[in-house]
Amino acid sequence: MTITITAFQRSPDGGRGLSRDTRVRWALEEVGQPYEVRLVSFRAMKEPAHLALHPFGQIPTYEEGDLVLFETGSIVFHIAERHAGLLPDDANARARAITWMFAAINTVEPPILELANARLLEGDKPWSKERLPLVEDRVRDRLKPLSARLGSADWLDGGFSAGDLMMVSVLLRLKSSGILDGYPNLAAYVARGEARPAYKRAFDAQLAVYTGKPPTG
Amino acid sequence: MTITITAFQRSPDGGRGLSRDTRVRWALEEVGQPYEVRLVSFRAMKEPAHLALHPFGQIPTYEEGDLVLFETGSIVFHIAERHAGLLPDDANARARAITWMFAAINTVEPPILELANARLLEGDKPWSKERLPLVEDRVRDRLKPLSARLGSADWLDGGFSAGDLMMVSVLLRLKSSGILDGYPNLAAYVARGEARPAYKRAFDAQLAVYTGKPPTG
Repeated sequence: MTITITAFQRSPDGGRGLSRDTRVRWALEEVGQPYEVRLVSFRAMKEPAHLALHPFGQIPTYEEGDLVLFETGSIVFHIAERHAGLLPDDANARARAITWMFAAINTVEPPILELANARLLEGDKPWSKERLPLVEDRVRDRLKPLSARLGSADWLDGGFSAGDLMMVSVLLRLKSSGILDGYPNLAAYVARGEARPAYKRAFDAQLAVYTGKPPTG
Repeated sequence: MTITITAFQRSPDGGRGLSRDTRVRWALEEVGQPYEVRLVSFRAMKEPAHLALHPFGQIPTYEEGDLVLFETGSIVFHIAERHAGLLPDDANARARAITWMFAAINTVEPPILELANARLLEGDKPWSKERLPLVEDRVRDRLKPLSARLGSADWLDGGFSAGDLMMVSVLLRLKSSGILDGYPNLAAYVARGEARPAYKRAFDAQLAVYTGKPPTG
């Protein structure tokens, strides 16, 4: 059955790969599943046809036969559960990899989203300059223990997993902030994720939407 | 094998059931699994023995034989995957229930956490009064489409699932804010969750830790 995902017709990040469809593309590339993409405009995202697929009017969505999913974490998990390559076979190792998926989006990402809001939505407010360091410290409160746990390992728990895919994707949002520079092992971890051929293919594919040029492959 | 979870020795919410161990207790009660609880002090949470279980130094954790998990969403999912009662049998319905778990913690909870930070960590800042309405609006931006999707249904997708357990748990954090009053169907949805016998047992058990009195059951 054909897999179809949705992505921004015009990504607000200018093709830097931070839109959440990149996470889904990356997962599909890791497991070697072809997919089609339907581009959605900002206006169409809030119209009934798209809201029927995604109640919060966002991207990405995932369609495969009768199945319709939204929410990046759920889609990545669905892909990981059905195809080899993103979750270990051993039951306990699998549960731990899933734990890192949840840790990425529920423990590490919330302060990173708050930082993005502080910059994008409140950058012009009178409190912005004084408040920003407080929010950055909340991000560091997560990065410090994450860095300690990762140590000198390549990935969070054994081989690369869907947990790493999500964690690297979440940390990528910090790249332009310079905050990662304070944690060299996390910066190297993110670079290791970006160096994976599957990530590169996913990145190139989302960039091609933005530039209008097909990936050169 | 015995299941052991961790919880606050002294919950910062005063036993209102908002600590995340309540979500895990609720899941265990829904599937009828007994569990033991090890209470952890704020100091012990940041010491090596607990950090070995939970890299971010939080509660709850989950131990069962050789398996150690952290992160509430992951623990609830693990319980739901292994015991009947929290995920539908049909593969597509199961994937959708998991989608609602992720939606609860990655789409609905982040602005709610931001609101909690605005109140608890920045309530004494000079910008607090002017900023709070902005953050509340971000919460409403999630509640409005959630309310529209729920409509007049009892639960988000068919019968009660782990997705509802997580969504109700996330929305419960808003109870004292009055924001839910603007969405009567969501307020009723939360009340429906709280009325479940399994939730009541979980709530009573966490309260008993706080009051020092065992549940009267």
